[in-house]
Amino acid sequence: MTADLSTLSINTIRTLAIDAIQKANSGHPGLPMGCAPMAYTLWHQHLKHDPKQPHWFDRDRFVLSAGHGSMLLYALLHLTGYDLSLDDLKAFRQWGSRTPGHPEWHETPGVEATTGPLGQGAANAVGMALAEKYLARHFNRPGHAIIDHFTYALVSDGDVMEGVAYEAASIAGHLGLGKLIYLYDANEITLDGPLSLTMSEDVGARYAACGWHVQHVTDGDRDLAALDRAIAAAKAEQDKPSIIVIKTTIGFGSPKKAGTSSAHGSPLGDAEVAATKTALGWDPTQSFHVPADVAAHMGEAVAKGARSHAAWKQQLAAYRAAHADLAVQLDQAIAGELPAGWDQDLPTFTGAKPVATRSAAGKVLAALAAKVPWLLGGDADLGGSTKTIVPGGDYGKAGEGRNLRFGIREHAMAAMGNGMLYHGGARTFVATFFVFSDYMRPSVRLAALNKMPAIFVWTHDSVGLGEDGPTHQPVEHLMALRAMPNLWVFRPADGNETTAGWRAALARTNGPTGLVLSRQDLPNVTPAPAPGSSAERGAYVLADGTDVILIASGSEVAIALEAREALAKDGVSARVVSMPCWELFAEQPQAYRESVLPPSQARRVSIEAGVTFGWREHIGDRGIAIGVDRFGASAPGEVLYEQFGLTPAAVVAAAKKVVAS
Amino acid sequence: MTADLSTLSINTIRTLAIDAIQKANSGHPGLPMGCAPMAYTLWHQHLKHDPKQPHWFDRDRFVLSAGHGSMLLYALLHLTGYDLSLDDLKAFRQWGSRTPGHPEWHETPGVEATTGPLGQGAANAVGMALAEKYLARHFNRPGHAIIDHFTYALVSDGDVMEGVAYEAASIAGHLGLGKLIYLYDANEITLDGPLSLTMSEDVGARYAACGWHVQHVTDGDRDLAALDRAIAAAKAEQDKPSIIVIKTTIGFGSPKKAGTSSAHGSPLGDAEVAATKTALGWDPTQSFHVPADVAAHMGEAVAKGARSHAAWKQQLAAYRAAHADLAVQLDQAIAGELPAGWDQDLPTFTGAKPVATRSAAGKVLAALAAKVPWLLGGDADLGGSTKTIVPGGDYGKAGEGRNLRFGIREHAMAAMGNGMLYHGGARTFVATFFVFSDYMRPSVRLAALNKMPAIFVWTHDSVGLGEDGPTHQPVEHLMALRAMPNLWVFRPADGNETTAGWRAALARTNGPTGLVLSRQDLPNVTPAPAPGSSAERGAYVLADGTDVILIASGSEVAIALEAREALAKDGVSARVVSMPCWELFAEQPQAYRESVLPPSQARRVSIEAGVTFGWREHIGDRGIAIGVDRFGASAPGEVLYEQFGLTPAAVVAAAKKVVAS
Repeated sequence: MTADLSTLSINTIRTLAIDAIQKANSGHPGLPMGCAPMAYTLWHQHLKHDPKQPHWFDRDRFVLSAGHGSMLLYALLHLTGYDLSLDDLKAFRQWGSRTPGHPEWHETPGVEATTGPLGQGAANAVGMALAEKYLARHFNRPGHAIIDHFTYALVSDGDVMEGVAYEAASIAGHLGLGKLIYLYDANEITLDGPLSLTMSEDVGARYAACGWHVQHVTDGDRDLAALDRAIAAAKAEQDKPSIIVIKTTIGFGSPKKAGTSSAHGSPLGDAEVAATKTALGWDPTQSFHVPADVAAHMGEAVAKGARSHAAWKQQLAAYRAAHADLAVQLDQAIAGELPAGWDQDLPTFTGAKPVATRSAAGKVLAALAAKVPWLLGGDADLGGSTKTIVPGGDYGKAGEGRNLRFGIREHAMAAMGNGMLYHGGARTFVATFFVFSDYMRPSVRLAALNKMPAIFVWTHDSVGLGEDGPTHQPVEHLMALRAMPNLWVFRPADGNETTAGWRAALARTNGPTGLVLSRQDLPNVTPAPAPGSSAERGAYVLADGTDVILIASGSEVAIALEAREALAKDGVSARVVSMPCWELFAEQPQAYRESVLPPSQARRVSIEAGVTFGWREHIGDRGIAIGVDRFGASAPGEVLYEQFGLTPAAVVAAAKKVVAS
Repeated sequence: MTADLSTLSINTIRTLAIDAIQKANSGHPGLPMGCAPMAYTLWHQHLKHDPKQPHWFDRDRFVLSAGHGSMLLYALLHLTGYDLSLDDLKAFRQWGSRTPGHPEWHETPGVEATTGPLGQGAANAVGMALAEKYLARHFNRPGHAIIDHFTYALVSDGDVMEGVAYEAASIAGHLGLGKLIYLYDANEITLDGPLSLTMSEDVGARYAACGWHVQHVTDGDRDLAALDRAIAAAKAEQDKPSIIVIKTTIGFGSPKKAGTSSAHGSPLGDAEVAATKTALGWDPTQSFHVPADVAAHMGEAVAKGARSHAAWKQQLAAYRAAHADLAVQLDQAIAGELPAGWDQDLPTFTGAKPVATRSAAGKVLAALAAKVPWLLGGDADLGGSTKTIVPGGDYGKAGEGRNLRFGIREHAMAAMGNGMLYHGGARTFVATFFVFSDYMRPSVRLAALNKMPAIFVWTHDSVGLGEDGPTHQPVEHLMALRAMPNLWVFRPADGNETTAGWRAALARTNGPTGLVLSRQDLPNVTPAPAPGSSAERGAYVLADGTDVILIASGSEVAIALEAREALAKDGVSARVVSMPCWELFAEQPQAYRESVLPPSQARRVSIEAGVTFGWREHIGDRGIAIGVDRFGASAPGEVLYEQFGLTPAAVVAAAKKVVAS
């Protein structure tokens, strides 16, 4: 490597970025221009990856948390030999391209995380490093370091300002994730102007206070040797996560815009693109130009990656020979499969003893965890309440347990869960009170967008939680989450439906599931579940009748059944439909859906302990929805059910009204 | 004051708390027992307040961010003479009581903020301190320090772990809010166990890195003198916010549970309550016991408060004489009123030139800000994009400007906005991209629960934003927010409806409003607004017709109008209903609603650039909803409208289908 080639390569990254952004007439040139030196140094000197086989499991992970700088990543992927052509770069931000405005996981080979909403990627990377550490402990054996890689994230001023990134940094420091390395692009410019408008903290000192190894590179624009040394030192630090605070110039190379916010979020403009190229010693008349020796130099990643990957495959073969059982597990874990019999021995719930669905879910989780060693997860300091503590001990600096204690950090918990799934090899869940799904929502959304099988265990699911009051009582959350594309919201009526819900969630491969569970005990009212059982179809006829349909979810199913009995005494025959999951029901064939909710029967009543907003979809124009169209109140749960009219009597009255209508 | 009386008072707080929690059989005794000494010291030695007139504007504010410790606050309020009786305390956590499980603003005299969801109160307090500083600068004059008080928050380990609290701390340090003081209850215990399970950072060092003045009190259980000195020193520090890290023992006094998580979130149990009382020198057979000398000692707050308040009133009289104009403003600001003529001179939008509703809203904001000097607000580093920069300069350490630059801290921004409203005297808005409403959601919810007139300006409201792609394109957010009780979601069709929306939001007194605005230019299609105009009724007939109703909001209203014209050519007469705000429409009399959407006309089509979930409410069983039931994509906005079928042609086709049905 010569200094010239380094500079040429860095300037190639810069000019590819400004050309693509100019062509799209949209994008963020400043970050790629400023971060090209650190990215080049990392990718050329340190990053372990195989561009031709981007899913190599033991590759280093690189997350561009500052996703608006997507062209930096696309340029790196193109130059290092990934399946991303110059034409792909020319299609930046266009319909159907593999180079969307912000990086999208699995839209583009080599993109490790969907980023753009700031802070998310920084927290995802913590989850990746956590997964790596857990899986290494679980799978590696003396002489067989099958899982052994670093996780890098390029984070921006905006990332480190976000609360979710702080939360993730705090837990990363606590857990001593020594193989996590942030390159912090301290360009001190944000979209609206200099960082000094909004921030004056000592970021390095803050990360040090959180237990991180902190280094500074004062000239990230030019001092490649310092960048290289800092990355090497970060890798050498085994006990603490590392952050390298790198002072850069946003829009480096642009004569008029470097160092200003005008380089941040808009194309440079044709004239400034030309001026920048001239300043960088580039031919201003050429676009998307990759000098041949840069192509060769950066393209070395292909051969280098292939060698590393081949060596790892040899290691794996030796591992396979020495630890056949573990290797089978590893194959399944990497493939995202579940071991044979994973859903045998799941609990069923019968008899007169009522059980809170959170407690039932705890039993299901324990049964699943016993079968799936790579299922790990945890809670945000509510494990005793959510009943989600995974048997076998806590994950920690020294332990191999897989109960994750995230602390009171709901948002980072969800983002780290996503990070573990990005990493692969792990199935995960995260748990807290349902009302705090609001704290996690940006990460829930990304799981849904990414089609990732994240599992959210949300307990204390209604006003039924009682005395904690309206700040802790979800009322709008069911509907607010049902509105989100590709998220399954599963609210079981009792223990058996809980088993069905957990089974469906873990079997799912194309999106996340929220399990919405009661604090209070509920009677056993549904049949024992089986794979593909009625509950897993989202809605089904639990008790039949001809005059009216009562539709309920969760804790209100038992109320509907009680109402049905009372109605029968008055000569009204009611069907009760248990509807734990709207989204699963919507996926059923029309014939099934119409068998449950016949179009000919317009007399319908819904009951659910939440807002009625949205129920018109299932009850139709003539139906009546019973719910809670207000915030809750602090009182015992049973008092609230009475006060808010969540009672068999209310259902009976409504049913009689629709029958008479 | 004697040491004995101090100890007696502190133990009275403790025993009132454990008695009320035991009686409710629900609650969190640990914090009140551990924090009673710091709370006593603050409230008896320092807090400026008038218990008999709790709304005295220049009182110190005290926020119990750790809202689960509500009984601490209720005990303090009772003992210092607020209108909160022993019977109120005995009704802790019961239906209809003024002592709910977590403190609720305005449910209870003296409660300054609704807390419980951790981190919120800590950020609210930052907003309060900011409001105080702004109002002091605006209203005070030499010799007339009419507004001059401290803001205190009692924060817990859980609070400082939350991302929103970090974000707020960072901006508080940046702004140098010297009259903000945190008492940090470092009891090192959380609900699930010792803090060491999840946290090992140096919190004091982290706050110091954020520019805070940091002090430590190592024996917060006993060293009242140290507590007193630290509070005094915090008050003396004018340039930085202060945090006092106070080591306490959770559940102090409980022989078996002190210092353990079992004291955190459950009643002690009758036996342990008795043992605790004995250990504290209390009569274990007495409940809700307030020794007479404690009542007298703590009750001194009444006379002391009355004196302070009377002195302030004299000051105010002098101010009124010297600065009559300002005094009028001050009265209005405190009363939450708006100056006469505040909604005159609002812009109207006519002519052929299209305008993005974000740009229109910027003009409206400028007009409103010119009339209402106590309207302040700002953005999360997107002011150039949200068009919400308030004329007159930035708020900062030295300036009087009222454009708030919150940095890339959406959640804290929303919580601080709430804090400013809690404080009173300020009207505020906060702004960011609509997709990032997810980051703010926990605070939006509290504004709705509190019936506070918060204003959220959310721009870039649909896939119409284009190239930034699905991470930045809201699709589910309209419905997810419409599901929330008491939030108005206002999505205007053009500039005129934008004026109506802003007017309605600022006129509102009983809840928050979200203004949902386009990035892209929109044609002027609606009539010039007037107070109480059609748009402010939430929905209205924009163009009439007889065969079918087309319902649209925001950028899709123009599409519906185009479709109407096309339909007319084919002999189909369509009514177009512009529906900017479902919630306002729902508040209209039935006759009005039925005049807009006659029950007799079941042929309806909705079009909105978001999920169709929820539209059944307005289109009925026979209607067709056109929307975007998937995540978006990265491409120019107009391409996405075509690809997703948000076109006049699609509306025409749907209209013909329902007409034929």
